[in-house]
Amino acid sequence: MATKVTPRNKDFSRWYTDVVQMGDLADYAPVKGCMVIKPHGYALWENVKGGLDRRFKATGHVNAYFPLFIPLNFIQKEAKHVEGFSPELAIVTVGGGKQLEEPLVVRPTSETVIGHMYAKWIQSYRDLPVLINQWANVVRWEMRTRLFLRTMEFLWQEGHTAHATAEEAQEETLRMLDVYTEFAVEDAAIPVIPGRKSESEKFAGAETSYSIEAMMGDRKALQAGTSHFLGQNFAKAFDIKYLDENNDLQYVWTTSWGLSTRMVGAIVMVHGDDQGLVLPPKLAPIQLVIVPIWKSDSERTAVLEIVNKVEAMLRNDVRVHVDARDEYSPGWKFNEWELKGVPLRIEIGPRDVEQNQVTLARRDVPGREGKSAAPLSGLAEEVQEMLATIQADLYRRALDFRQAHTYEPKDYAEFKEAVDHGFAYAWWCGDADCEAQIKEDTKATTRCIPLEQEPGTGKCIQCGKEATERAIFGRAY
Amino acid sequence: MATKVTPRNKDFSRWYTDVVQMGDLADYAPVKGCMVIKPHGYALWENVKGGLDRRFKATGHVNAYFPLFIPLNFIQKEAKHVEGFSPELAIVTVGGGKQLEEPLVVRPTSETVIGHMYAKWIQSYRDLPVLINQWANVVRWEMRTRLFLRTMEFLWQEGHTAHATAEEAQEETLRMLDVYTEFAVEDAAIPVIPGRKSESEKFAGAETSYSIEAMMGDRKALQAGTSHFLGQNFAKAFDIKYLDENNDLQYVWTTSWGLSTRMVGAIVMVHGDDQGLVLPPKLAPIQLVIVPIWKSDSERTAVLEIVNKVEAMLRNDVRVHVDARDEYSPGWKFNEWELKGVPLRIEIGPRDVEQNQVTLARRDVPGREGKSAAPLSGLAEEVQEMLATIQADLYRRALDFRQAHTYEPKDYAEFKEAVDHGFAYAWWCGDADCEAQIKEDTKATTRCIPLEQEPGTGKCIQCGKEATERAIFGRAY
Repeated sequence: MATKVTPRNKDFSRWYTDVVQMGDLADYAPVKGCMVIKPHGYALWENVKGGLDRRFKATGHVNAYFPLFIPLNFIQKEAKHVEGFSPELAIVTVGGGKQLEEPLVVRPTSETVIGHMYAKWIQSYRDLPVLINQWANVVRWEMRTRLFLRTMEFLWQEGHTAHATAEEAQEETLRMLDVYTEFAVEDAAIPVIPGRKSESEKFAGAETSYSIEAMMGDRKALQAGTSHFLGQNFAKAFDIKYLDENNDLQYVWTTSWGLSTRMVGAIVMVHGDDQGLVLPPKLAPIQLVIVPIWKSDSERTAVLEIVNKVEAMLRNDVRVHVDARDEYSPGWKFNEWELKGVPLRIEIGPRDVEQNQVTLARRDVPGREGKSAAPLSGLAEEVQEMLATIQADLYRRALDFRQAHTYEPKDYAEFKEAVDHGFAYAWWCGDADCEAQIKEDTKATTRCIPLEQEPGTGKCIQCGKEATERAIFGRAY
Repeated sequence: MATKVTPRNKDFSRWYTDVVQMGDLADYAPVKGCMVIKPHGYALWENVKGGLDRRFKATGHVNAYFPLFIPLNFIQKEAKHVEGFSPELAIVTVGGGKQLEEPLVVRPTSETVIGHMYAKWIQSYRDLPVLINQWANVVRWEMRTRLFLRTMEFLWQEGHTAHATAEEAQEETLRMLDVYTEFAVEDAAIPVIPGRKSESEKFAGAETSYSIEAMMGDRKALQAGTSHFLGQNFAKAFDIKYLDENNDLQYVWTTSWGLSTRMVGAIVMVHGDDQGLVLPPKLAPIQLVIVPIWKSDSERTAVLEIVNKVEAMLRNDVRVHVDARDEYSPGWKFNEWELKGVPLRIEIGPRDVEQNQVTLARRDVPGREGKSAAPLSGLAEEVQEMLATIQADLYRRALDFRQAHTYEPKDYAEFKEAVDHGFAYAWWCGDADCEAQIKEDTKATTRCIPLEQEPGTGKCIQCGKEATERAIFGRAY
């Protein structure tokens, strides 16, 4: 804990790894490409899960669990799907000491095996819609680990729904994109841009893919959640049919949508600073830490009495932790809890005891400016308000940052300049060749075509062709 | 849903499979040995998780996540461990299109990879104890599937703790056995016998293994949770050392403990009947279903008004579901919710509306005897009480059943007779050869040596040697 975090401005990538490790979120696993999610990181993920799961259930979804192993031939049934996922597969060829006749794929995503089960479960229009979500681990072969951002195995949720009509499936796709947006904004305090992916960036097997895109602290983009309208592609590949009200056999329409432990990486990169993590109060495993300060034994007794009183006052409404360890100094503790991103700290020393008050210190406002004294009476309300303020301020700061680094270039020269410094929002023709040219010239990709944009037409920022939509461009994780 | 459940007395094994499938808990997956946990089964598992996770946290444990893939050589580091698990491994040999230099094992359990990480994380006595739990999927090669009871992949939690002293680790091992016992008794309404496993039945790599053993409806035993004192076996294999207060380097002492989706199978086999599942109220995804009954449209309106009123009255305290589907008859619905094991049903028909009452029907007491009328006023309390009564009655019934089928045979002839009909509780010498002989003669195994037994000595039930402990014997899943 003695070593310091690499400054963010000096080397963002090293800063990120330092913060994740020193903030005790994760560590490298013995197998290359894999990670260990440490207790503090997992508690954060549990809160992410909680915020999403609640919203999934409120929109009528139920959870289930499908198997880890998928027969290799399943992956091959949907043409685009196999093309997209083949290079990334981990394959089990030996089981119970024997060579397997049919190799098993460790799921990279579960459209195929779930499609197989839906074909069995769905017979009639009465069985529709099927609205199932799964919390699971998936594996995509990957050797260049970036903790949380790019790992061979990751945790996620994947929703898989089946509907009687295209319209219903399309609605569901956008409903879940909304759920992700709401979660990102309200719980993670991350402003996101919901939009449609370009044809070349869409999911392998989807008709249309949507994503929420966020700007990280280094002004690069991160795709933080995706929702796919799969049309009848998987229904046809897996023969998922139902008898409609007229007794005619129809293929269902399916969707899938996912959000992963990548979100933890986004939280780190959007809010963190040179002191370490800064966690949004709604998701922070510990929202408030109380650090007692004393020199003499008699001070210790008096201080701890108030500490316990304050803890009792708060613990019903706030995730509070008392750090009364004798073997560490207050300064050491401040540093540790700052590294871990705890949004609010209460310091209680002999002078506070005398004056019947505590000192509050905001994690998101460093130094003196973030400190204030608060009387014991009404402290619970004061703390609640301050946590709400921190949550709102984190969002506002991230939004200001993104807006300050989002440009509307007038020509391709300005565009190139723009993606050097952040996002470019520009008219785009939608042509894959044009997109490829932009990527070659600038390393920037289309992040999404924002759903909310004023109608109109313009000239494509690269090729000058007539364009009916604007896209967000940026370099991406 | 038209087909009926095979009667329990006719063929318990088919009854079990029928109940699991028709009760909508699970289905077979396309890969042999694997299963799909359907939404109703997963919701039950979520409640099992909730009951355990709360208790783990209350006893100071935190959750984390370790990787699915383990280098093959890790498994080989602990001699007994490799011997026990080698025949059951699923092995990844191809990744990202390439043959791997070092094959990866899909975790059958995580002592080894967690041991590796603990060696990295633990340096000083200040780092101890480490009290971590993981919720995860594990794989043990297995082709003879019994839904929930024996599947290639299953979900479980595995706790892994490290301590400074043997005493502390031993205490932890028994503390977690207690947690399992409390959960089984209080939440699952399953009486269990906590005890020590015999030498030949212990976990591969443990010094001492403990388990909770339950009697199923066919009088066979099921091991429903295990807790292991691992001594310094894994500490030595993975070099997990710490500097003690005198600055001397010491190996840690470790424990592990696990409970899996098998528990769902136990709940089915202990409480279920010929109408399907019977779920204990504390774990039931739906605790109470309301079924409206009407013939005419005007009746429908009047009935649904009361149905909604009752639902509103109950929903804050009870997991309630209203089944107002028009396309199914009340009788059809009764049957479906009985199959699914919902503990309590409220029927509301025109006569109930007139009399300002509802009809309550207990799942665990079939027919007229389980039905009673209850006035609307005070209904919430009445429902709460009845759910508590059902919970208590299920436990009592299961305990009576076990006691009625647990025998204390006086000689080996009686013993053989006893294990034909249930459990035998008998003096046992502890000798592995004697145990093997019993198994050969009777197919019964030592389930556990109960922790609570009166001290004393006796003659071993098989070999007649002096014995200082009694064991529970039975045929087991």
